[in-house]
Amino acid sequence: MVKTMYNWGILGCGRIAVRMAEALKLVPDAVLYAAGSRSTEKAEAFREENGFLKAYGSYEELCNDENVDIVYIATPHNYHVDAAILAMNHGKHVLIEKPMTVNTKGMDEIIKTASENKVFCMEGMWMRFFPVYEKVLDWIKSGRIGDIVSVSADFCITVPVDDMGCRLSNPDLAGGALLDLGVYPLNFAAMFLGSCPKEIQGVAAFSPAGVDMNDSVSLLYENNAAATLQTSLLYKGSDTGYIYGTKGHIKIPHYIWADSAELFLGKELAETAESFFEKGFQYEVSEVHRCIAQGKQESEIMPLCETRNITAIMDQLRARWNFIYPFE
Amino acid sequence: MVKTMYNWGILGCGRIAVRMAEALKLVPDAVLYAAGSRSTEKAEAFREENGFLKAYGSYEELCNDENVDIVYIATPHNYHVDAAILAMNHGKHVLIEKPMTVNTKGMDEIIKTASENKVFCMEGMWMRFFPVYEKVLDWIKSGRIGDIVSVSADFCITVPVDDMGCRLSNPDLAGGALLDLGVYPLNFAAMFLGSCPKEIQGVAAFSPAGVDMNDSVSLLYENNAAATLQTSLLYKGSDTGYIYGTKGHIKIPHYIWADSAELFLGKELAETAESFFEKGFQYEVSEVHRCIAQGKQESEIMPLCETRNITAIMDQLRARWNFIYPFE
Repeated sequence: MVKTMYNWGILGCGRIAVRMAEALKLVPDAVLYAAGSRSTEKAEAFREENGFLKAYGSYEELCNDENVDIVYIATPHNYHVDAAILAMNHGKHVLIEKPMTVNTKGMDEIIKTASENKVFCMEGMWMRFFPVYEKVLDWIKSGRIGDIVSVSADFCITVPVDDMGCRLSNPDLAGGALLDLGVYPLNFAAMFLGSCPKEIQGVAAFSPAGVDMNDSVSLLYENNAAATLQTSLLYKGSDTGYIYGTKGHIKIPHYIWADSAELFLGKELAETAESFFEKGFQYEVSEVHRCIAQGKQESEIMPLCETRNITAIMDQLRARWNFIYPFE
Repeated sequence: MVKTMYNWGILGCGRIAVRMAEALKLVPDAVLYAAGSRSTEKAEAFREENGFLKAYGSYEELCNDENVDIVYIATPHNYHVDAAILAMNHGKHVLIEKPMTVNTKGMDEIIKTASENKVFCMEGMWMRFFPVYEKVLDWIKSGRIGDIVSVSADFCITVPVDDMGCRLSNPDLAGGALLDLGVYPLNFAAMFLGSCPKEIQGVAAFSPAGVDMNDSVSLLYENNAAATLQTSLLYKGSDTGYIYGTKGHIKIPHYIWADSAELFLGKELAETAESFFEKGFQYEVSEVHRCIAQGKQESEIMPLCETRNITAIMDQLRARWNFIYPFE
């Protein structure tokens, strides 16, 4: 029997879980089924506020519910591996919030578990599924900007770097700019240049507590294209992505939550693409449904090998910076 | 007797010399005095077309004319050192087109010769003297954008990289993106973060003839600020410079020939600076006159040590890329 509705379970009831709940409401075949937290009170409050059917006071109970089809892993990312493995070992499909893991070691454990359990597994890199990127890829495939030779993007926000109550500032919670924010410009570059640069370089300034807080990264690819990426906890950046080709370029304002893209031929604006954008997570949710309905264990758009390659880039940058998390 | 008029001699009669001639006409106390070329015909044609008084068929004759006060070195940059030393050894002040030299070895010869002859010597980094940058520095000094934490800039143009007739494509003529174009984003970063980054990284793709044609550079400074710079021969870039601070940022459209700058506080445009801009070289010419009138041998705005530091950054990048010119 082909399922027509999917029961979602949310593992971890923080802020990102609320955003997912809002997006699930936009997807007709998604059921806001169960919320799981380490605290019964928190799970119950989340259930009530966000309109889920069930609340569980432990991740195990959530995963033991045989009616849960897909588990969205919404814990801080240093807890993703354990949570995802728990869910997959209960036969659940998983969508894991970005960054999927802190390092490739964790990635490999997830990939192995997904394979053993024959379940669908994907990183929740929502950006990849926005409708506007379909138009961008059309422009590129039809040769409008010629050969791609450069991609640049930044994602920079202001964070209280001395406040360990802020997750991004806290090394014990896998803080730092690269993993939380830098994963976006890295994915943006990977969308157009692939995820295997032949050379990886970059600089990073560190906070007193020891997380990377101001990064500039340069990548070089086999085809002579380069990527230039910035991420920081110290300033509000432009959030703009650029794809430069030999004949023109594409500018994607706030590419991380993109609702428009601009095609330039020479210096002239030749075409604009605009698309509906609300909440945003619904596009990745639809991709999960589509893949599961087709019996796929991975998405062709965001396959595990690509997430692993990008994680490996972050591993290499951190190795270059001698940046090891306390729990690694 | 304080001079009130300065006789300019142009050494090398190519395209950049024509631009300087046009700018000199905008400076009241500049005299378009003499043009020197290795060819009498070329010098005479240049003299006539651009309104100079004298033409010389060799650089030596130009430098032997005791009425020449200042020599503008306008040869391809791999010939700058010999030409500048010739002029300075004849007691002439010199303005040397960018990049002043191919490497720090050449810079050190120039610095030594300038010092021995007690003449004024400066790199023609015209950008530094544009009026709009005074306003930009005012915004920064008055704390409008807080502490500077990031500078980014690109300078990328399309060049026929397989055509050795194109100087930028030809390794024998010190071609490549970094020296000719990259010197601008490097100077832009130096204007706001200084010229001594504590860490220098970058990637470059090379043309079949062996010049760098697609570069991405990351610099880190002692104060934790970073610079992210791009230069390329493969695509037309944005030519935009950004200075990000903890409270806001400044955007300078076409910063290399800037006539405007925009101050943003948060995401809001708070103020725009605009300034007259024609030709552009006249601002550096006026700086040369001002310094010479005051008996200075260097400009405080573009001192030799700063040019040397930036040349040293380019040396380090090229060393990292194993990029040595045939004549080095």
